[in-house]
Amino acid sequence: MQKFIIIGGDGAGMSAASKAKRNQPDAEVIVFERGPYISYSACGMPYWIGGQIGPMDKLVVLTPERARERRGIDVRIGHEVTQIDAAQQVVHVRNLETDAIFTQPYDKLVIATGARAAKPPIPGVDLPGVFALRSLSDGERIYDYLSQNPARRAVVIGGGYIGLEMAEGFRDRDMQVAVVEMLPQLLPNFDPDMVEPVAAHLVEKEVEIWTQTRVTQIRQSTDGALEVIVQSGKGETTLPADIVLVATGVRPNSELAQAAGLKLGATGAIWVDAQMRTSDPHIYAAGDCVEHFHRVLGENVWIPLAPVANRGGRVAGDNISGGQSSLPGIIGTAVVKVFDYTLAVTGLTENEARAHDGLGEIGSAVITSHEKAAYWPGAAKINVKLIIQKSNGRVIGGQLVGKKGVAKRIDVIATAITAGMTADDMAMLDLAYAPPYSPTYDPIQVCANVVGKGE
Amino acid sequence: MQKFIIIGGDGAGMSAASKAKRNQPDAEVIVFERGPYISYSACGMPYWIGGQIGPMDKLVVLTPERARERRGIDVRIGHEVTQIDAAQQVVHVRNLETDAIFTQPYDKLVIATGARAAKPPIPGVDLPGVFALRSLSDGERIYDYLSQNPARRAVVIGGGYIGLEMAEGFRDRDMQVAVVEMLPQLLPNFDPDMVEPVAAHLVEKEVEIWTQTRVTQIRQSTDGALEVIVQSGKGETTLPADIVLVATGVRPNSELAQAAGLKLGATGAIWVDAQMRTSDPHIYAAGDCVEHFHRVLGENVWIPLAPVANRGGRVAGDNISGGQSSLPGIIGTAVVKVFDYTLAVTGLTENEARAHDGLGEIGSAVITSHEKAAYWPGAAKINVKLIIQKSNGRVIGGQLVGKKGVAKRIDVIATAITAGMTADDMAMLDLAYAPPYSPTYDPIQVCANVVGKGE
Repeated sequence: MQKFIIIGGDGAGMSAASKAKRNQPDAEVIVFERGPYISYSACGMPYWIGGQIGPMDKLVVLTPERARERRGIDVRIGHEVTQIDAAQQVVHVRNLETDAIFTQPYDKLVIATGARAAKPPIPGVDLPGVFALRSLSDGERIYDYLSQNPARRAVVIGGGYIGLEMAEGFRDRDMQVAVVEMLPQLLPNFDPDMVEPVAAHLVEKEVEIWTQTRVTQIRQSTDGALEVIVQSGKGETTLPADIVLVATGVRPNSELAQAAGLKLGATGAIWVDAQMRTSDPHIYAAGDCVEHFHRVLGENVWIPLAPVANRGGRVAGDNISGGQSSLPGIIGTAVVKVFDYTLAVTGLTENEARAHDGLGEIGSAVITSHEKAAYWPGAAKINVKLIIQKSNGRVIGGQLVGKKGVAKRIDVIATAITAGMTADDMAMLDLAYAPPYSPTYDPIQVCANVVGKGE
Repeated sequence: MQKFIIIGGDGAGMSAASKAKRNQPDAEVIVFERGPYISYSACGMPYWIGGQIGPMDKLVVLTPERARERRGIDVRIGHEVTQIDAAQQVVHVRNLETDAIFTQPYDKLVIATGARAAKPPIPGVDLPGVFALRSLSDGERIYDYLSQNPARRAVVIGGGYIGLEMAEGFRDRDMQVAVVEMLPQLLPNFDPDMVEPVAAHLVEKEVEIWTQTRVTQIRQSTDGALEVIVQSGKGETTLPADIVLVATGVRPNSELAQAAGLKLGATGAIWVDAQMRTSDPHIYAAGDCVEHFHRVLGENVWIPLAPVANRGGRVAGDNISGGQSSLPGIIGTAVVKVFDYTLAVTGLTENEARAHDGLGEIGSAVITSHEKAAYWPGAAKINVKLIIQKSNGRVIGGQLVGKKGVAKRIDVIATAITAGMTADDMAMLDLAYAPPYSPTYDPIQVCANVVGKGE
């Protein structure tokens, strides 16, 4: 009987465990999870904290009990794997409740240790009332803190996805919010021209924006509240806060793999091949702890996002249990809600493309169009940007921003990029039209015409 | 100076004229249009008639005056081309106002004569109060009739797109509506399993549905209203009506081309190549009067839809004026709103695929999934169907039905089909995820996994 060990019980780990158990119902599948929860929607936390979702358990996809009963997976929460002995094919495990340490042999191991919030070395970053948001336990701590403290003012450090989603969550609780970002723009994985309307919208929604601003210190004020000291073009400013969210990025949990002698990539995340195999033939890895092949760049990148984690886990689970799957790579597709706006990106931004020598001359175009027939009640305008490689006309990136009709159009561009389509190919796609859904020429095709032929 | 003549001033014709004039600003571009309008959104008419859009001119994209002033196109409404003399390169034109006939020479000609409603040979089909809906003038007649007559009851003959859109338009005017369809199902270009929820929804919306029912006669009743006599499994029934809409399909206006000796296809529509050239080197054709190459079937089909008409017109206009464009074919992508539901289709339906010998063994799967994260407020369920060719795993068709999240997902499938992707390729696409827009596994990818691996 095969013994499969999975380290980490979130999306990637549970996808691997479930797939392996489906393939080999007789196999023993053990999942060691350090925390109290498995398989939850981390991406829903800002909305739960903002009060939009209902009780927390709506975010929990699977409980350890159900995983055991329904899927036959031996889930052990509160268990931390402290060491992988690749030569002996055993892991060392600590039961966090009893502090007991034991070893567990495996035939195949899947590392799905995820990523962690990267707290910057700011003085005061560990004060009470200063939080990061990564795990469901983090979310719970923030939720409880807000429930128990009459918080009126939030300062968010970091203007990326999580920072802006949490800004919305705090506003949904009717709190004042300031967002502090070191870079000149919010959402740095978009081109600045795409972020502009969103930045203006945040001001409409009464979110205070501090770009090109560094946080130098967080301290407790005399009345017990917090103060965030920031340095901007205007000099030093003190931002009062009842709660501070640090959302300055994440790091892969790759130390355990590294200590076991597994190869890491240049990104610092675990290196895997398309079958999710690490450099050890008995060890696979998946999820936010691994890097992936970028199909446009042709090199490995670390872009930790939930769908790829789930898919990679499933591939790893299939391959350890006799299946044959592979993950052909990613192209960095993502979408984010910022209050009434949606921003979406796939492939490379213009800035990324121009920074990458191997791609030759780059073309780009931005158009504005209605997302439905212009006369349809409530039709909104969206901006579409496409980036092409001039040498061959291939689309290598796309971005969309607007209040409606954004989220799925990016998937059309993502599919076209994956297929290696040129702008002309995209312009000639046979897409669906009816007035409630699109103009006769879909906006992405209008943009494809413009970027492809310069008209 | 080149002289370009375009027959027909709707989407295809005006796209051709505009593109040719942009390419060659010095060329003389004359458009002969039989009716009073050019370049309007026929697809918006049911909603305008239903009172959702506002005044009729919202549907008009371009007036003859603006086409002349802004684009330099010599648009002549009320002018019917009665004959094409291909040998002499002249057209014979009748001024419908003065009845004067004149000839006009051309260097290149584009035929964009469109399609017409096909009225079945039912006794009474020409009675006052019985309408078809194809041109904006048709729409105007219906609108005026409803404004001047206190119509409470509508009978719609034909349960396709137009029939159901008009059923909604009549309901929006608070009228009683019965839809009569000869076939066993509504919307015959979808598989029956996809239409089922929509049929149930129509009943909820108090639309009376008569499938497998033939209309034998339309007659005037003694009180001056209309009566539609139908024959169904229940025998003969009389449906009272104040207005009758005949929506039993359309036919290509290919007679002018045929009389000029141009090649028609087996579909009865004008044959063109990918450059929109007819069998005469000086004559191009585009829009609803031509057939197109179907990229999945590998043969020509006649599926008259607005986006392809516009695109084909643009290709024709480019090629007559020195450009080099081609339309690589279509795959029959379409979307229709039926009250709160959206149905969409691309490629082949299961029924079509199974009826087509050349495709070998066919696989299909239907799944139901939330279209957003299940916990997102207002998340709806959608059904997804994929059809594959078993020999190579390629996706050859897709259908979606649901209240939300349908219209753009069909475009992702359409793009994947165009690229020749397999179900496995689709399952591994890097699509955008955030809880307000999708579940972690997009429904189309869940379906791709099921149809691809039988799990």
